[in-house]
Amino acid sequence: MGLCQRWRRLRIPGLQACGLHTVREAAVPTPPHWLVERLGLFEQLWTAQVKRLASLAQKEHRTIKISLPGGQKVDAVAWNTTPYQLAQQISSKLADTAVAAQVNGEPYDLERPLETDSDLRFLTFDSAEGKAVFWHSSTHVLGAAAEQLLGAVLCQGPSTGCGFYHDFFLGKERTIKGSELPVLERICQELAAAAQPFRRLEASQDQLRQLFKDNPFKLHLIEEKVTGPTATVYGCGMLVDLCRGPHLRHTGQIGGLKLLSNSSSLWRFSGTPETLQRVSGISFPTAEELRAWEEWREEAELRDHRRIGKEQELFFFHELSPGSCFFLPRGTRVYNVLVAFIRAEYTRRGFSEVKTPTLFSTKLWELSGHWEHYREDMFALQPPDSDSHAGSQSDHSTSHPTGTLALKPMNCPAHCLMFAHRPRSWRELPLRLADFGALHRAEASGSLGGLTRLRRFQQDDAHIFCAPDQLEAEIRGCLDFLRSVYTVLGFSFRLALSTRPSGFLGEPCLWDQAEQVLQQALEEFGEPWDLNPGDGAFYGPKIDVHLRDALGRPHQCGTIQLDFQLPLRFDLQYKGQAGALERPVLIHRAVLGSVERMLGVLAESCGGKWPLWLSPFQVVVIPVGTEQEEYAREAQRSLQAAGLVGDLDADSGLTLGRRIRRAQLAHYNFQFVVGQKEQSKRTVNIRTRDNRRLGEWDLAEAVQRLLELQNTRVPNAEEIF
Amino acid sequence: MGLCQRWRRLRIPGLQACGLHTVREAAVPTPPHWLVERLGLFEQLWTAQVKRLASLAQKEHRTIKISLPGGQKVDAVAWNTTPYQLAQQISSKLADTAVAAQVNGEPYDLERPLETDSDLRFLTFDSAEGKAVFWHSSTHVLGAAAEQLLGAVLCQGPSTGCGFYHDFFLGKERTIKGSELPVLERICQELAAAAQPFRRLEASQDQLRQLFKDNPFKLHLIEEKVTGPTATVYGCGMLVDLCRGPHLRHTGQIGGLKLLSNSSSLWRFSGTPETLQRVSGISFPTAEELRAWEEWREEAELRDHRRIGKEQELFFFHELSPGSCFFLPRGTRVYNVLVAFIRAEYTRRGFSEVKTPTLFSTKLWELSGHWEHYREDMFALQPPDSDSHAGSQSDHSTSHPTGTLALKPMNCPAHCLMFAHRPRSWRELPLRLADFGALHRAEASGSLGGLTRLRRFQQDDAHIFCAPDQLEAEIRGCLDFLRSVYTVLGFSFRLALSTRPSGFLGEPCLWDQAEQVLQQALEEFGEPWDLNPGDGAFYGPKIDVHLRDALGRPHQCGTIQLDFQLPLRFDLQYKGQAGALERPVLIHRAVLGSVERMLGVLAESCGGKWPLWLSPFQVVVIPVGTEQEEYAREAQRSLQAAGLVGDLDADSGLTLGRRIRRAQLAHYNFQFVVGQKEQSKRTVNIRTRDNRRLGEWDLAEAVQRLLELQNTRVPNAEEIF
Repeated sequence: MGLCQRWRRLRIPGLQACGLHTVREAAVPTPPHWLVERLGLFEQLWTAQVKRLASLAQKEHRTIKISLPGGQKVDAVAWNTTPYQLAQQISSKLADTAVAAQVNGEPYDLERPLETDSDLRFLTFDSAEGKAVFWHSSTHVLGAAAEQLLGAVLCQGPSTGCGFYHDFFLGKERTIKGSELPVLERICQELAAAAQPFRRLEASQDQLRQLFKDNPFKLHLIEEKVTGPTATVYGCGMLVDLCRGPHLRHTGQIGGLKLLSNSSSLWRFSGTPETLQRVSGISFPTAEELRAWEEWREEAELRDHRRIGKEQELFFFHELSPGSCFFLPRGTRVYNVLVAFIRAEYTRRGFSEVKTPTLFSTKLWELSGHWEHYREDMFALQPPDSDSHAGSQSDHSTSHPTGTLALKPMNCPAHCLMFAHRPRSWRELPLRLADFGALHRAEASGSLGGLTRLRRFQQDDAHIFCAPDQLEAEIRGCLDFLRSVYTVLGFSFRLALSTRPSGFLGEPCLWDQAEQVLQQALEEFGEPWDLNPGDGAFYGPKIDVHLRDALGRPHQCGTIQLDFQLPLRFDLQYKGQAGALERPVLIHRAVLGSVERMLGVLAESCGGKWPLWLSPFQVVVIPVGTEQEEYAREAQRSLQAAGLVGDLDADSGLTLGRRIRRAQLAHYNFQFVVGQKEQSKRTVNIRTRDNRRLGEWDLAEAVQRLLELQNTRVPNAEEIF
Repeated sequence: MGLCQRWRRLRIPGLQACGLHTVREAAVPTPPHWLVERLGLFEQLWTAQVKRLASLAQKEHRTIKISLPGGQKVDAVAWNTTPYQLAQQISSKLADTAVAAQVNGEPYDLERPLETDSDLRFLTFDSAEGKAVFWHSSTHVLGAAAEQLLGAVLCQGPSTGCGFYHDFFLGKERTIKGSELPVLERICQELAAAAQPFRRLEASQDQLRQLFKDNPFKLHLIEEKVTGPTATVYGCGMLVDLCRGPHLRHTGQIGGLKLLSNSSSLWRFSGTPETLQRVSGISFPTAEELRAWEEWREEAELRDHRRIGKEQELFFFHELSPGSCFFLPRGTRVYNVLVAFIRAEYTRRGFSEVKTPTLFSTKLWELSGHWEHYREDMFALQPPDSDSHAGSQSDHSTSHPTGTLALKPMNCPAHCLMFAHRPRSWRELPLRLADFGALHRAEASGSLGGLTRLRRFQQDDAHIFCAPDQLEAEIRGCLDFLRSVYTVLGFSFRLALSTRPSGFLGEPCLWDQAEQVLQQALEEFGEPWDLNPGDGAFYGPKIDVHLRDALGRPHQCGTIQLDFQLPLRFDLQYKGQAGALERPVLIHRAVLGSVERMLGVLAESCGGKWPLWLSPFQVVVIPVGTEQEEYAREAQRSLQAAGLVGDLDADSGLTLGRRIRRAQLAHYNFQFVVGQKEQSKRTVNIRTRDNRRLGEWDLAEAVQRLLELQNTRVPNAEEIF
């Protein structure tokens, strides 16, 4: 197919109706001049490269040794044999499903000839690396469609953990609309169906600049990122893009593709920031897999905590307090149970709960550094009796008058004041101060959504002040705390150590020591962990905690963060064992993180079917007839007196069966049915929300058993009752 | 003694050293011109009045009937016989101790001749009315001293519930210093010892204006307050003051007087406010009574919650967050135990805890009426992303721009939003929403002090939305809630019903009905109660609750308050049983009131000797020797695992006896002493903080017993262990 043919062929029905400017300008679109030039140059370079490789292969005709995944070793011809050919030799299924290769541990295109003796592996869509190649290849398809349909100037198109996106520029005024996505998606699907091969070209810096002379973003990337004499460029259909690769063999491997959302993003890399358009999507090897994913997503939406929050009357939001949640009685119960859980752990683990103010003078935030780095996210105010209001008007953009107060966005400075409020001795260390105080952060109104991002929230926040030689034991304690809470909540998690970034503050030897201590603690902890070199904060190294909920979705909630700077800024000291004043180390830590957000994560993770101990729907008592209503109320009072949630469904307008069904749909962990027999024997007939029948139980014993199951925080009280 | 003699006589040693301007101006002070004039006029009017009364008495020579306190009736001569003369006839002790009379229920000077048939009673210092006369008379002495020593322009000098004060003006720049109080006090004592008689003069408005022509404050008071043709003026020594009376017979009745503090106050009654100086004091009939009071005050100071808070490390304050308390671990424990207590009551009593935001749009406060009536006490702010800042500058004194937010000073509007967020049915009523949310009120910095008045506090606040016919049961429930909590806390209390004020809002029939319901509920409750007619809020009648702590001091903490206005303002409705929409009644109620303030009241009430269940010092484990330290730690862990406060005193530098004594001084409810025998038998030897020996107990059993005593919240765990 000639280079320009596909472009002309794209007379898709409905394209005209979209009012797209490339279409309006020419009813039968032809590619613009710069694209024809770029494609011409690419073809020319590609032909030369094909010739060069062929002659290399012919001249050398060197046999190389390739070890295959099973351990088998085969011979191949240097500059000629490709991983794809070897995959075909192993099995046609492997050849069909492989998305890329790994050669001596490096990612590699399947159609790229092998050069030397190699250890060969194949990547499929099943692995994270395979998905990354698959989705990254898909973003080329999206880029090509955007170039052709919208005349987009392409910028960058990476894969993400759950799909891909492409950022491009449409001009200063033009934004992409949601209604344009279906058309763009159809073109993507056509381009995929056309099974365009990905062609890898090695080009010199001069050639790169020539290829992308009309794209200022790519030119900037070439300047910044291309450090060697050559770099790779991929051609795929009419798209030529600067790219490290590898890619799929051809776009036909993309069996299902869906565009999901459009938004704007910012080009920050050069000169003045430029507003870009971002389109996100997802793709799969087969249409069936895409359909399965769509079903999963629907399920996830059903589990959306905002929906559960509304249906179960847990919480709501109101325009008169944007970004702050109103917790209704049931939501407050879940909230308080979570806090009580952490409080119980605090008692066990030697943490001391404290209560600190909400409003502080900005002098505190200046001292802590928040005023310099964080003030745009803080709510500041003038107290009504302050006479310095005039001062704030004259120069409010750069400073605030003396009397200014700000709502705390974090607890750490207040805890530093508490540490410093009287002389401290080594005997008091480690001092572990925990605080559930409300925090306020001025998140932009556009970024607010459910419990995920709030302007007001509370954390299970604690700060540990310890001597340097106590650090390792404290970190181990924090890790153990995390594991024990996440296990109860049913989360798996993965840890990562982030070490000093460039521009870190403090003494290198302190950092050396601290990073070593963290590493040691992680090793001894025995869970797998990753290293993120250079990813720590400028004030100290940290351990990031990524948990996965029951749907396998990742969340960042807990954190363990060392801080060498706040003890300096607040001049914190304690009298050491030898009598001299010493400086403590500070550890910031949280397990739940924001209690609000964790409540949302839990709601989604359990899909509204709360484990008994967290449940706002523990038991509903259902009298068979109106004669049992009084006894049912008594059973309800027994439950409530024990601190359990006991509701009553005495609606005589509904049959018993309907009421049991209603209770199960509302996810009541247990239903206590009471008829004449139960009343006379002071028993209850118990069913679970999965309609298992647990039979007749003595009322008092049933309450006792529920209390046991609640207090041990088991995840499956219905099964082990 | 001539009128001017005392002034000249006042060459008190040390007066010169004070640098007082009257003294500096003339080494031998003579009274200023205006005072000589005022005294001259007073003498002239007084002589005329004495003559007038004598002639009246002589001309009429009318006999009048006087009933005395015992029921006895005696004859007296109109315009001649005085209450004092009759007191002398009854007993010389009564004549000596009486401070004033009551004639036909009206307060009356002892030396003022009776005019008609009368019912006569005598007031002594023992009654509240007697104390008011005594302290009001004392403030004349203080005023005279301030006039003479400082050249003060006197303003007002009332008695208070616990002494008296006098406000006066010293010029724009001059303030009174604490170091001046001793000299002022000495002059007061001299003036008292001089036994100057109080002389009551009836003067016309013209005469009043003439007498006080040099005192703008008095002239203003004459304009504003004197409505009849005449008013009374009292002369006492060199002081002439506008005053309703009555007073002591003479200043010699003041046997002990002490000045306590100096501060500034504001004259708000006319024109621009003027800063005044305020000196406060207290006085008693005898020096012995003053000494006894000083001892009581010392005891009260020892019990001052600020002192206890510091000594026991419960809490502290910091200049970077004025008016907000930092609760240290021990204070937080007491705080949380109080909240848990109320939470347990909520569960028992069908209250639902909710959590509402801290920051709300001022639109909410406009809707609730707080913005109109309360905005000066609220902290308002502009969110950082708001673009309406310019608007606030142009007109910030009268309105706020749309985006303005304010910290909640009360929870009620948030609870109204919660009631209104979806349609409600009569089946849901009564809906009892409870909230421990932090409240912020912009109290003036001068009024802040300890936990009594704060800018940030939390309440055990709840709002009951109910149908009118549920009102009585709900009020009874609130009263029962109050009694049960105050009984546990060891407080007695007294209730008062405040009914509609003039200018009340709403329908009179609604008020009739509500006041009747409250009265009925109070009657049935069975505790004594008072009626305060016209003392209710404009939006509803209320029940005030005055509790008395262990020292007998009164505090207002709880409240039960009806509100007909908020349901109207928020247009709250529910679907009634008949299907039509109806308006609920709102009850505001609190039992502890501010948890912070209650914590302070409790600290003072128990003098730092906390009952076990509230105590942050429940048990200290003391090993006899270092060999028992490990077992002592084990005992400590057993306590902590049970959620009890278990500390350890293993300080081997102190003898066992000293450590036990130290624990008792720190008010640890119990000491667990463990020696070799206890270690081998896994027991503990228990003592109480009053050094009672409870002997050897199995460790586990001791922990169990403590838990029982804690959970039943007994006040005397040490006695009944």
